[in-house]
Amino acid sequence: MTTASICTIGDEILIGQIVDTNSSHISNALNERGIQVTRMVSVGDDHDAIVNDLSNELSVNNIVIVTGGLGPTKDDITKKALADLSGAKGYKTDSRQLEIVHRILKARGLDVLDINLAQADVPQTCEVIPNKLGTAPIMVFRFSEDRFGHPATLYSLPGVPFEAIGAIPDILDDIATHYPLSDIHHRTVNTFGIAESALSKMIETWEDSLPEDMHLAYLPNVLLGVRLRLSIYGGDKEDQTRRIDAEFDKLKAILKDNIYEGHTLHECIGNMLRKAGKTVSCAESCTGGMIASLFTREAGASDYFLGSVTSYANSVKTGILGVPEEIISKYGAVSEECVRKMAEGVRRVTGSDYAVATSGIAGPGGGTESKPVGLVWIGISSEKSTEAVSFVFKGDRMRNIERFASNALNELRIKICNELTY
Amino acid sequence: MTTASICTIGDEILIGQIVDTNSSHISNALNERGIQVTRMVSVGDDHDAIVNDLSNELSVNNIVIVTGGLGPTKDDITKKALADLSGAKGYKTDSRQLEIVHRILKARGLDVLDINLAQADVPQTCEVIPNKLGTAPIMVFRFSEDRFGHPATLYSLPGVPFEAIGAIPDILDDIATHYPLSDIHHRTVNTFGIAESALSKMIETWEDSLPEDMHLAYLPNVLLGVRLRLSIYGGDKEDQTRRIDAEFDKLKAILKDNIYEGHTLHECIGNMLRKAGKTVSCAESCTGGMIASLFTREAGASDYFLGSVTSYANSVKTGILGVPEEIISKYGAVSEECVRKMAEGVRRVTGSDYAVATSGIAGPGGGTESKPVGLVWIGISSEKSTEAVSFVFKGDRMRNIERFASNALNELRIKICNELTY
Repeated sequence: MTTASICTIGDEILIGQIVDTNSSHISNALNERGIQVTRMVSVGDDHDAIVNDLSNELSVNNIVIVTGGLGPTKDDITKKALADLSGAKGYKTDSRQLEIVHRILKARGLDVLDINLAQADVPQTCEVIPNKLGTAPIMVFRFSEDRFGHPATLYSLPGVPFEAIGAIPDILDDIATHYPLSDIHHRTVNTFGIAESALSKMIETWEDSLPEDMHLAYLPNVLLGVRLRLSIYGGDKEDQTRRIDAEFDKLKAILKDNIYEGHTLHECIGNMLRKAGKTVSCAESCTGGMIASLFTREAGASDYFLGSVTSYANSVKTGILGVPEEIISKYGAVSEECVRKMAEGVRRVTGSDYAVATSGIAGPGGGTESKPVGLVWIGISSEKSTEAVSFVFKGDRMRNIERFASNALNELRIKICNELTY
Repeated sequence: MTTASICTIGDEILIGQIVDTNSSHISNALNERGIQVTRMVSVGDDHDAIVNDLSNELSVNNIVIVTGGLGPTKDDITKKALADLSGAKGYKTDSRQLEIVHRILKARGLDVLDINLAQADVPQTCEVIPNKLGTAPIMVFRFSEDRFGHPATLYSLPGVPFEAIGAIPDILDDIATHYPLSDIHHRTVNTFGIAESALSKMIETWEDSLPEDMHLAYLPNVLLGVRLRLSIYGGDKEDQTRRIDAEFDKLKAILKDNIYEGHTLHECIGNMLRKAGKTVSCAESCTGGMIASLFTREAGASDYFLGSVTSYANSVKTGILGVPEEIISKYGAVSEECVRKMAEGVRRVTGSDYAVATSGIAGPGGGTESKPVGLVWIGISSEKSTEAVSFVFKGDRMRNIERFASNALNELRIKICNELTY
């Protein structure tokens, strides 16, 4: 099996100032292509440490993927280390990357400085894959068997997550043309509303009866629920896909509407609404705009998402959404009565078919015995009816807001699912 | 200087299933105590790889901190590897941890299984720091100079973030009694509105004149701007802090209002508004709720944030915000005229002192020659005046939305800064 090591470079990681998320994205992508990641390493902006550590990784892996250390400022010394590691006598300018540097800076209305131009200069020993998303190119160093006992390739990617993730498809294409990759077949289904341990208990019999060559993974995520992934190495694509589908069909009979279609709850809702020609809006208090923000991540959301009102102050709840003042004074803003009026109000002012509303206490302060921190009321309204439901979660502020938002989306999903048959 | 390496163990990290956040917390805590983290390594659940990698780290560092690989299930083999690495002849039961195991399982209403009891068994070669937050103990292995050429200590922590972070104070106390620690002093200032390369050019003279013992790092972030960090190792805390402050004072004279106070733009704005007793609201089209979502991440945002209208559909722009239909038909929704009316409209309907509005084209589709993908119009309104400004960014949809939101917050910050003198 082809093996890889992922290395990040930068003092900012070693001093704990930023969390490395690139390695996780890259290893995920490599694993999906059947490449085994054996190690991840982070080193600081230190020339000798970089040369030494990368040599070690190249001597025990086929592929080494490096991110970071390529910014235009002088604390980044990766390029010099890579030149020395590969025995480059000098640098060359990559004209394609130079053009990109000019284009990007012009689009941003910035002057082109010498340090920007220098980003298109690379060690003579490397091949370049142009980085369309940023100024630093992707560098590919190929080492012959003499050097590390086996042919090895080092890919150097920018550290900016958006650029590093954007480079992954190009890297994978290059790897596929140079290394024999075994196929891996997999499919993921999303579940929502059952905790991981309870889910594992519910599907125990199904899991135990899975064929030996099929591997199940649990992937919990606060916004998405627990995703379940089945994978098989090797074999015919069509056959294996059919086998995986058959197992998931059995699972659906167990989990029913706790399983949803699509990558995310908001995508699932969007697809149902688009198909039915219906629209949605939201009224957010404790979630503060996060539900709207999730809907609008999706390109084409304007087909079904009309808008939202973040009614953080009570005056906005009464003023824009028309929640009666008596409701708030009698029951409080975090109440069943208030979220019902909020959902109905936003549906009325936007003219949407569906609406979801939230009001809760994200914390850390503000809770009482009867309305603790972590309490959320969720209201869902359609032409047919308005419902409300409450949950209590135990997390910090950000975690609570995320759980409030994902559970509101899930309640909305179930209502739409029940009302729209197509 | 005392050096450390942080190692995480677990296949779930190497296959990209989870992001390692423990290492960042631990390295941050070590750095604050003047311990230099030289490397971070992640290895899989493989006995030989664990023994081999940990030996390497111990041979070049004073301290190695290991997280993960201590769960009760059979794929976790860290304890066996640590027993072999330290030459343990057998295991011993730690009675304090055994008591904790019983207490935790009882509190959760769970049966005490043999695999749970086995968690209190540790290699005979280690000392135990009881883990009050979970069932797996913290193990301390001390190696004499004979073994790795210098005295070295290995700390093994559970992988659950909540337990690993909870163990840090105990680990630091133990380190402080065994190693001479020098202090590290650092401070970060945030800048916004100048790209990293241009910033580096602007502050070149200042950077070159920094004292030799002072280290500067650039930390770019799409939502926060480029943060600049100065750090010094050793010396008196008060003196060194004064020296760093003096350098940043010189920097302020160069960068002026491109420097802002606070950890984030929304926190900076929030602090200014709270101090002045003023309020803000927003009208979001292309940013889809992200600005409101950023404001409401901050506990206590209700002191100054009244609410927002995500006017994704034009009917919401005209209906709730009162943007005249002629404006949209004549200039389009993505126009200076429209964002001015949006900002004024949301200020009127919420009654806020300040308002910020966005309308743009996040992409990937929808652009034209005169209004390309990446174009955003930002409107800012106060009692005194309403202004509008436009930018064009080149990113994918999510990146564009983030840049639209952060630049809108920055424009708002500058206007508030100019109008409010206190």
